[in-house]
Amino acid sequence: MSEGTAPAAGDAASVADEAARERLLYLRGSIDNLDAALVHLLAERFKCTQQVGELKARHSLPPADPAREAAQIARLRRLAEDARLDPAFAEKFLNFIIGEVVQHHRAIADRAVNSGDAKPV
Amino acid sequence: MSEGTAPAAGDAASVADEAARERLLYLRGSIDNLDAALVHLLAERFKCTQQVGELKARHSLPPADPAREAAQIARLRRLAEDARLDPAFAEKFLNFIIGEVVQHHRAIADRAVNSGDAKPV
Repeated sequence: MSEGTAPAAGDAASVADEAARERLLYLRGSIDNLDAALVHLLAERFKCTQQVGELKARHSLPPADPAREAAQIARLRRLAEDARLDPAFAEKFLNFIIGEVVQHHRAIADRAVNSGDAKPV
Repeated sequence: MSEGTAPAAGDAASVADEAARERLLYLRGSIDNLDAALVHLLAERFKCTQQVGELKARHSLPPADPAREAAQIARLRRLAEDARLDPAFAEKFLNFIIGEVVQHHRAIADRAVNSGDAKPV
């Protein structure tokens, strides 16, 4: 078959590659939108945990709270199942965030002790 | 001072503790709401990356893409700064998610190779 009449096998492959490339860009656009939303929700979550940290430091409460964490993990695993997200990943995710938060709370508590702002126990 | 006329120092402390306890519950309610939103956005993000993984496997593209990841990290650090979230944490968060996604992509690619579904390179 001569050039320009019908697509050759190589052309069909390059059309498929171009369609795949477009689909990849489309999906990456959605991923970028979701990441922006995730970052803003995380910023809001840290505003809340910052306040919790200050409250705990003022009232000399321990930075970590295992019973609360266990309840959070059980709840997030249930929510993940409903949303068809791997519950093990949801648990890893929460542990990752909590690890960061507890570090922040320790830093707030240390600052409060150093400034004499903590309530004596 | 007799009981019932004016709060003693111990009562004032317990009123402060009660107010702190209420404030803690209030903040935890917000944290739980934000976590539910985060889990649902993550579920949506994994739906997108699952499709990316299948597309990459069909077109024999590598599971990891360092140039794309560098661009994502730079963008999320900028967004985090605007939202007053620690940019270093935003980067750690994205690396945590990408690590999980690349594992998923490798699993999808392995399944595609085993089933003979991958496009030959």
